[in-house]
Amino acid sequence: MKQKSVRVYAPASISNLGSGFDILGLAIDKPGDFVTARRMKEPGLKFSVLSAGSDVPSNPNDNVAAHVAAMMIRDFRPDFGIEMILEKKMPVGSGLGSSAASSVAAAVAVNALLKKPVPKNELLPFALEGEKKASGAGHADNAAPSLLGGVCLVRSYHPLDVIQIPIRNSIVWVVVHPHISIRTEEARRILPVAIAMESAVQQWGNTSGLTIGLIKGDVKLVGKCVEDVIIEPVRAKLIPGFHAVKKAALEAGASGCSISGSGPSVFAVTGSAASGKKIASAMVRAFQQSANVECDVMISKVNTKGARVVQTK
Amino acid sequence: MKQKSVRVYAPASISNLGSGFDILGLAIDKPGDFVTARRMKEPGLKFSVLSAGSDVPSNPNDNVAAHVAAMMIRDFRPDFGIEMILEKKMPVGSGLGSSAASSVAAAVAVNALLKKPVPKNELLPFALEGEKKASGAGHADNAAPSLLGGVCLVRSYHPLDVIQIPIRNSIVWVVVHPHISIRTEEARRILPVAIAMESAVQQWGNTSGLTIGLIKGDVKLVGKCVEDVIIEPVRAKLIPGFHAVKKAALEAGASGCSISGSGPSVFAVTGSAASGKKIASAMVRAFQQSANVECDVMISKVNTKGARVVQTK
Repeated sequence: MKQKSVRVYAPASISNLGSGFDILGLAIDKPGDFVTARRMKEPGLKFSVLSAGSDVPSNPNDNVAAHVAAMMIRDFRPDFGIEMILEKKMPVGSGLGSSAASSVAAAVAVNALLKKPVPKNELLPFALEGEKKASGAGHADNAAPSLLGGVCLVRSYHPLDVIQIPIRNSIVWVVVHPHISIRTEEARRILPVAIAMESAVQQWGNTSGLTIGLIKGDVKLVGKCVEDVIIEPVRAKLIPGFHAVKKAALEAGASGCSISGSGPSVFAVTGSAASGKKIASAMVRAFQQSANVECDVMISKVNTKGARVVQTK
Repeated sequence: MKQKSVRVYAPASISNLGSGFDILGLAIDKPGDFVTARRMKEPGLKFSVLSAGSDVPSNPNDNVAAHVAAMMIRDFRPDFGIEMILEKKMPVGSGLGSSAASSVAAAVAVNALLKKPVPKNELLPFALEGEKKASGAGHADNAAPSLLGGVCLVRSYHPLDVIQIPIRNSIVWVVVHPHISIRTEEARRILPVAIAMESAVQQWGNTSGLTIGLIKGDVKLVGKCVEDVIIEPVRAKLIPGFHAVKKAALEAGASGCSISGSGPSVFAVTGSAASGKKIASAMVRAFQQSANVECDVMISKVNTKGARVVQTK
């Protein structure tokens, strides 16, 4: 590989998918983060951030992308230094895998500059170092789909076992991001440490059904099976207007609706882009009317490509 | 339909499949129960049992097949009576869905005699009445596959939602039945009512992986994912020699191994009948050596037909 400079895009992701808490995630088309990395003569890492907001740390010691790049430089020992620019295009604390997108973009960019780049899936442990830095836990349900694309099952962490689900990509995912922020740690802190066996059985029945529905591209089955009887009832309290928004989505024709990641973004599933627009409008209106919150809207099928180099020089 | 007499076969089934506790089950080829039903002029039900063992109640008030037949007569009000013979070919308390097979065979037999038989799937609620009589709870993870064939997901009970998983039928299921008996109620009584969130997440990760593996016919994935971190550790205590048997199965080449239903039968998965025989021998030897128990062995792909009329007159 002779790239002197690469620009990489890593997409946002919806993790949990309701009943698949901590194990399922999928990539969407946008938003996403861009990372540009250039070889430089001096060793080490030079890092900067381009961001519209002020909540993204530009100090390399605090930034997840810089942390991932530093880990890769430590392990791969390239005979050059790296100048890296993170273009932060995603809101932080949105439930859309913002830290995962930055981490993944950094890993893919550094890898592309190496003399012998490693296969994409070997970059996942580095991206997880970024996730660990962001939230204290190296969860892979955003990083895996942002990196690999598609719908990923994180079956186990010890050893790390990630399976790409062979989906029929017909379902349309509607994501509404209300302009409030939830810290992943806070969303995790309020979860119960023990749950009723009966609820757990109901949940893994839905997880299995969700898996079948994704493979068949059966939007009704997926809609029924995103139903999360354990985490959603607890986390919904952190999202003003959630119940009104979910009701609005279902009344507007969504097959199912739940929280994206740890929130506050809310996703709904449906069968067509046209129906997706109608559902999104109803959800946005419900957020405005019930909680006086403005929103962004994303409507997308599953992004099957994941992170990719978009420019090389 | 002009049948005056029908003979019906309903197969045994493996429920739970490890991580799919209370939601998954599959039918195997044999053993299974036979029910013969004949129209008779006098109204009501005349019931008898042909069985090698003495543990099957022949009193119609205590027998699940008779109970199911009585329920169907009550609901469908045929203008004839029914003479029913249950040929009990399966061990009771084996973890192979014995009561489900009897219940299903009775339901299918009565249905075949009706002037307007209902579709097979509408018989499930009647078979569940038999299950309720047998163990106090109307679980469907044996009855659904015995009735419908294939691998069934019981996604929900209220409303009853059973999904046949579109499997690639390449995996070989080895079942070893040690000659001891476990009462389903006892196996259920010892289960915890609450479980750790962390274990639940691990379990539904395996449930999702198991579902993918069944659909793809991926024996290695299915083997990894039958791993049950919640119920098996508790129920293993009821099965003398379980850990030695599981170890023997894995060492003989099985991809995975767990308890069939509530036990004491143990199942293993592998890719071919030849390997299945080798694994079965190792498991039988382990039961003998570690617990001095004799066993029956069944080796089968998934039975995709389920219960069926084998003879009409």
